[in-house]
Amino acid sequence: MAALLSAAISRVHMLSTSDHASVVSINLFVALLCACIVIGHLLEESRWINESITALLIGLCTGVIILLTTGMKSSHLMVFSEDLFFIYLLPPIIFNAGFQVKKKQFFRNFITIMSFGAIGTLVSCAIITLGVTQMFKRLDVGPLDIGDYLAIGAIFAATDSVCTLQVLNQDETPLLYSLVFGEGVVNDATSVVLFNAIQSFDITHMDHRIALQFIGNFFYLFVSSTMLGVLTGLLSAYIIKKLYFGRHSTDREVALMMLMAYLSYMLAELFYLSGILTVFFCGIVMSHYTWHNVTESSRITTKHTFATLSFVAEIFIFVYVGMDALDIEKWRFVSNSPGTSVAVSSVLLVLVLAGRAAFVFPLSFLSNLAKKTQNEKISFRQQVIIWWAGLMRGAVSMALAYNKFTSLGHTHLRGNAIMITSTITVVLFSTVVR
Amino acid sequence: MAALLSAAISRVHMLSTSDHASVVSINLFVALLCACIVIGHLLEESRWINESITALLIGLCTGVIILLTTGMKSSHLMVFSEDLFFIYLLPPIIFNAGFQVKKKQFFRNFITIMSFGAIGTLVSCAIITLGVTQMFKRLDVGPLDIGDYLAIGAIFAATDSVCTLQVLNQDETPLLYSLVFGEGVVNDATSVVLFNAIQSFDITHMDHRIALQFIGNFFYLFVSSTMLGVLTGLLSAYIIKKLYFGRHSTDREVALMMLMAYLSYMLAELFYLSGILTVFFCGIVMSHYTWHNVTESSRITTKHTFATLSFVAEIFIFVYVGMDALDIEKWRFVSNSPGTSVAVSSVLLVLVLAGRAAFVFPLSFLSNLAKKTQNEKISFRQQVIIWWAGLMRGAVSMALAYNKFTSLGHTHLRGNAIMITSTITVVLFSTVVR
Repeated sequence: MAALLSAAISRVHMLSTSDHASVVSINLFVALLCACIVIGHLLEESRWINESITALLIGLCTGVIILLTTGMKSSHLMVFSEDLFFIYLLPPIIFNAGFQVKKKQFFRNFITIMSFGAIGTLVSCAIITLGVTQMFKRLDVGPLDIGDYLAIGAIFAATDSVCTLQVLNQDETPLLYSLVFGEGVVNDATSVVLFNAIQSFDITHMDHRIALQFIGNFFYLFVSSTMLGVLTGLLSAYIIKKLYFGRHSTDREVALMMLMAYLSYMLAELFYLSGILTVFFCGIVMSHYTWHNVTESSRITTKHTFATLSFVAEIFIFVYVGMDALDIEKWRFVSNSPGTSVAVSSVLLVLVLAGRAAFVFPLSFLSNLAKKTQNEKISFRQQVIIWWAGLMRGAVSMALAYNKFTSLGHTHLRGNAIMITSTITVVLFSTVVR
Repeated sequence: MAALLSAAISRVHMLSTSDHASVVSINLFVALLCACIVIGHLLEESRWINESITALLIGLCTGVIILLTTGMKSSHLMVFSEDLFFIYLLPPIIFNAGFQVKKKQFFRNFITIMSFGAIGTLVSCAIITLGVTQMFKRLDVGPLDIGDYLAIGAIFAATDSVCTLQVLNQDETPLLYSLVFGEGVVNDATSVVLFNAIQSFDITHMDHRIALQFIGNFFYLFVSSTMLGVLTGLLSAYIIKKLYFGRHSTDREVALMMLMAYLSYMLAELFYLSGILTVFFCGIVMSHYTWHNVTESSRITTKHTFATLSFVAEIFIFVYVGMDALDIEKWRFVSNSPGTSVAVSSVLLVLVLAGRAAFVFPLSFLSNLAKKTQNEKISFRQQVIIWWAGLMRGAVSMALAYNKFTSLGHTHLRGNAIMITSTITVVLFSTVVR
């Protein structure tokens, strides 16, 4: 009987081997995500570690194991796919950010948040771009053009709104929390918009007309993306309020909210707008209007489902980044010139610090001028906290760096490989040391 | 300014055209899903229509529009991918079936349900296989071998547990409901197990040894898949109970439950077992143990999230089937021999009726012998309802038919094309006329 069975099993075996590799990697990924959640929970009390760091470390360890078992050939299971990140992982994270934001504080400080998020990112990007343009020529990084420098500026101007929040407490410091959180989200969106704008222009032949086009494009993307998000959110509220009057069905409501949120993101992509901004404002409108038209159980369900999806997507990204951090292909270039790599990472860290200081303090000063009561003003101590809390670089930076400096997950140029490894170093360093 | 903007937009245009086709189809699909939910809700009062039929009809209409706009070339946006169905759409549907089943009624009638689901499916499959073997030779369907006939038996032995339930009411007829629902789920699992077993054996050279292997394989799959599901479910309950003692976090609990449910399915696929059975029993165990260890908001969230995911996955399948039903490639074969196609569909419908009658009445009789009180017995009227309610064929039949008779979404053989179109006809007919 045992012989029969084993024969039978080997039969089934042969049949499905073709896509068995993907089944193995899905299994490993899901198991790692579970492990991250459990370990992250166990370490919750600790001040020094959280789910993101756990996920990074677990990814690193798995990377080492894969590296050893495959004979130093590769450390990752799947090639980094932009589609995976931009179509499946990013939308729930950003939507949830919009959905969970404290709207009262957010709209009270709307102008400050928008100026921190939009103008601040531009300032930060400009300073980092100028800095790297000056420094990298001396460091012999490799052939990078002005488009690459601008892209580096955009990549490192993106703060990680998620990690950031683990330093602050919403109940103890509501003003700070809403400022840093709101800034983080607008900043995420701005840097993606900026990055796309840079990508789609031929910056090597910069002139007056192109600069104007660039600014026009930026504002067009910003305004129309926001409008699309607000409209989709309002439409969902209208549909649920008008059509479902008197007879509510939780499953339908939840399904409609999820699908319409996703639709807003995909519509923005369809019209070549910024899906990030759209889905963020769709989240705000949905939590402000749609959420109040649904049943009590729909409210609880949507609140936790969106948070859970966002949470899982983030952990997924961190495990992936941890696993990919050891990719031998990239480090081979670096090992030939370790000095350059350390120098690049240090320069980037210093520029991130400087770029952030260059807008937090002046913009806080301007914001304080507009406020009447002392209570609403941002004290110097608070400014320092805002500066420090927003220094972390996370998943969005990683995704943009991969988008810019790799093609289909592989790096062939020395300069590009150094940029990827430096991004990983900065993300690891700023996440762990804070 | 307008000229500048349009120039800018066309720039962005060019850059992202490569994967813009997939963005368009995702948009269309999400919009169609939203439309199905809204229209399905508006038509809820109607006895004659529901979400499944709405989705089918909307899919059909969209298919017609695509057919006209592409100049009669194709009616669908994406090629049917088994991976999409078996890795992403089926697990939430089956898990939710296990999660929402009324366990008290289910376990009280466990033996009846298992015999209906497992033995009934086998009987039904055998009768349909014998019937088509006899009839199809006379009808000149095309070159089909015994493996194909067995596959047809397995495909049409799968009832659609979802459509089925819209005829019955859980509160009015609890016994009938639990019997038909439980049977539907076990039946889904059995027909997939059976189908896989048939696929993996070379039935053309049938002999004593292979028959024994076949039965051994079937039982091995059945028992080990069930065990794996129960174990994963218990593990999730243990983790949540032990680790989370005293400090509950809804997002973590929900994420862990979702990930572990999915893990159970993927583990089964990893070990070449039946993911369907595994995830079904994992759902039962999770709703019986894990669900009682989590916070109140986790309970509400998981209940509705799983139901919503399952609901969306089903609608997705029906829209897809509706869209694909018009695929010109398949109907071209049929239009050459319309008589054969009508005859095949009619033969299949009659065999489905006969196959179901052949096990519902005898097994009910046997089940009644074992019951002591009159109240627990299944009356003749109830037997007729069970027989009639389980006649519908739905998404699982479609998916299996695609798996068997198409390669990468295309049909090249006449016999195969007729089988696909007949499956679509039977699904449409049995769903609409009931």
